Amino acid sequence: VRRHAERAAYDRETVNAILDAAVICHLGVLALGSPLVIPTSFVRIGNRIYLHGARANRSLALAGGSPVCVTVSILDGLVLARSAFGHSMNYRAVVVLGKATIVTDAAEKLAALVAFVDHVIPGRSAEVRPPSDSELASTTVLSVNLDEASAKIRTGPPIDTQADAGVSAWAGEVPMHTEFGEAVAAPFIVSDTSEPASIARLRRERA
Amino acid sequence: VRRHAERAAYDRETVNAILDAAVICHLGVLALGSPLVIPTSFVRIGNRIYLHGARANRSLALAGGSPVCVTVSILDGLVLARSAFGHSMNYRAVVVLGKATIVTDAAEKLAALVAFVDHVIPGRSAEVRPPSDSELASTTVLSVNLDEASAKIRTGPPIDTQADAGVSAWAGEVPMHTEFGEAVAAPFIVSDTSEPASIARLRRERA
Repeated sequence: VRRHAERAAYDRETVNAILDAAVICHLGVLALGSPLVIPTSFVRIGNRIYLHGARANRSLALAGGSPVCVTVSILDGLVLARSAFGHSMNYRAVVVLGKATIVTDAAEKLAALVAFVDHVIPGRSAEVRPPSDSELASTTVLSVNLDEASAKIRTGPPIDTQADAGVSAWAGEVPMHTEFGEAVAAPFIVSDTSEPASIARLRRERA
Repeated sequence: VRRHAERAAYDRETVNAILDAAVICHLGVLALGSPLVIPTSFVRIGNRIYLHGARANRSLALAGGSPVCVTVSILDGLVLARSAFGHSMNYRAVVVLGKATIVTDAAEKLAALVAFVDHVIPGRSAEVRPPSDSELASTTVLSVNLDEASAKIRTGPPIDTQADAGVSAWAGEVPMHTEFGEAVAAPFIVSDTSEPASIARLRRERA
């Protein structure tokens, strides 16, 4: 009997594909000796992931120069077995362990801030005003290299247990994905309120 | 100018509603002095949240008796501003800080294992075989009380910045939600392959 439909992966292509498909990550830092986990946006550029926040952000301040864990997970479906115990989920996850470095190089910081926007909405940065010097100064950007990144993936149906062959319950998978609703223009947009090209692209590429 | 569309909340009803709406959480533990964050399923029962995993699970073993952080986040939409800097996301998140307790009481453990199934798919536990003694023995269940739980919520359009009044870019919100696809019966289900009542309910209640 196959006991696990989960597999671990350490190759960079698998790790990168999951990081690039996720919208947010969960950053784990140490706060007074205890773990603190916060959801935040991120982007991968080459062999590093970047995180950012306001300079006043406590979690980012704690992370600078310290060991952190950045975890990304994408839920792909519910897995229903004939037993309560056999229930599971299909998912793709990446765990990155490493030391967070505060990005001080102005060009690297600007590139990261632009990439944050394009990570979520490909092509969006070309439609908007780029960051100003004061916006750059008020933002903390951290990076973590991907040397200690690993992926874990579960796919497929529930594990069949012969002991449950006589149970009449349905078993199988219910796929899940993220759906984007109709765009709502901000109240201060009075001219062209139709959604921009980047959102149409988002619907095609992330759906 | 309103600088933040985010608000913090500490009342139990707000915290509970977010916990009950989320499918998974991210558990932060200390591993050899460094934070480790793993996605996992959970359920709230009254004033506690419960987590579970195989008895061999390293993260759960580390968590028992130790300070942990359990974070839940639900992404509700993308927020597009006229500047790269003004981009944001609408979300609901809960951060629970506390000491994880290993559940040893058999009745509490059984109730939690049944509740895990019903948290994700309301009513599902009534359709399936309940946990056996050996399944209970092979599972570690942890609980954390909600005394130190707080919520953070962002809603609404991007913050309007007068400096961007002349930028022609579109701005607004793109709502996001989870969509459930068509159920796929497991290959070993040969009799009634149509989806069960619990999945139809799931589509109504979680959509």
